[in-house]
Amino acid sequence: MSSSSSTKRSGRRPGPTTTREAIAAAARRQFAELGYDRATIRGIAGEAGVDAALVVRFHGSKDALFREVMALPPAVAEAMERLADGPRATVGRRLAEVVVGMLEDPRSRAIVLGRIRSASSHPEAAALVRDTVTRDVGRLVAAVTDDRPETRSGLVGSQVVGLALARHVVRLEPLASLPAADVVEYIAPVFQHYLLGRLGEHESS
Amino acid sequence: MSSSSSTKRSGRRPGPTTTREAIAAAARRQFAELGYDRATIRGIAGEAGVDAALVVRFHGSKDALFREVMALPPAVAEAMERLADGPRATVGRRLAEVVVGMLEDPRSRAIVLGRIRSASSHPEAAALVRDTVTRDVGRLVAAVTDDRPETRSGLVGSQVVGLALARHVVRLEPLASLPAADVVEYIAPVFQHYLLGRLGEHESS
Repeated sequence: MSSSSSTKRSGRRPGPTTTREAIAAAARRQFAELGYDRATIRGIAGEAGVDAALVVRFHGSKDALFREVMALPPAVAEAMERLADGPRATVGRRLAEVVVGMLEDPRSRAIVLGRIRSASSHPEAAALVRDTVTRDVGRLVAAVTDDRPETRSGLVGSQVVGLALARHVVRLEPLASLPAADVVEYIAPVFQHYLLGRLGEHESS
Repeated sequence: MSSSSSTKRSGRRPGPTTTREAIAAAARRQFAELGYDRATIRGIAGEAGVDAALVVRFHGSKDALFREVMALPPAVAEAMERLADGPRATVGRRLAEVVVGMLEDPRSRAIVLGRIRSASSHPEAAALVRDTVTRDVGRLVAAVTDDRPETRSGLVGSQVVGLALARHVVRLEPLASLPAADVVEYIAPVFQHYLLGRLGEHESS
């Protein structure tokens, strides 16, 4: 946590991979807690125990650093991809398990919250949220229905963003303290509706 | 928009009510677009065309100004209160109409987005979001069910927050461009589930 002198430019420091990962972890945490605007290269370097110039040398600009550390872990995208394989009747539940699990894991939670918290002031962050919804959620939706897939992806995305904020930022109780398994139960029928339910029953009946 | 000299301390300015409302409107807009941290008394005064000292004299601190202009219009709370009166089978739809309508109106949308955008960095904003969910949504939920009302209020709140962000901040398409009536149709069954549906079917079956 402290900017130990042993890791400054002039002294010995951990190998590049370790240093890169220390910078990435600090960046992820600060973007998640402060949002893009309030996070600084200097603050991130301080938390990682390295010189700010090293952060710039390794990762380029603050914007490039944001893009690099805000990529969702491949495991999440892979889990999303597998969701279409099981029974359709329970796809909402399987999606709820992946989403709630993603928010339970500190690393992926930091990525999701970092994007959402930064989205209001940083267009790149808003674009990352849109990309994930369009690509990862969109791929699942397209695999299970051809009825207004983009609208359904957006509705799923709205509940994911709202759950992340309500449970982990605003900390609405008791939602913030519920066991993950309970949240999965409560959210699953909503995802099922957004994925495969009839949208706009009043129009079609 | 410009800080016209005719409204500076030394010159003539509009009557106190008009000035107060001009400051409140500017504050609401800046809190909504920038969030609490990035909004400044100086910037708000500039947009309202008054001296910063006048803002402080009228409204006290930035925190007091935030609390004052971020109160939901009484019409929204009153509309929420009336929701429990109609048939239970359509209470989710009536709630969706109030929520989507609140986000369509520029003034109440600014209040909702101002609170949500400020919630990550300003505890007072997070408390306002929690209070609205607990009090206004909570009152409706308590009127229609005694099964885990706080959990149900929180789930409703999570979808309201997510809709506001996805449609009006992240601007997920096509959700951002859909007519309000369509959004009401799509969200209504979700509110109905959160208000009166069986939560945690796996536990009770």
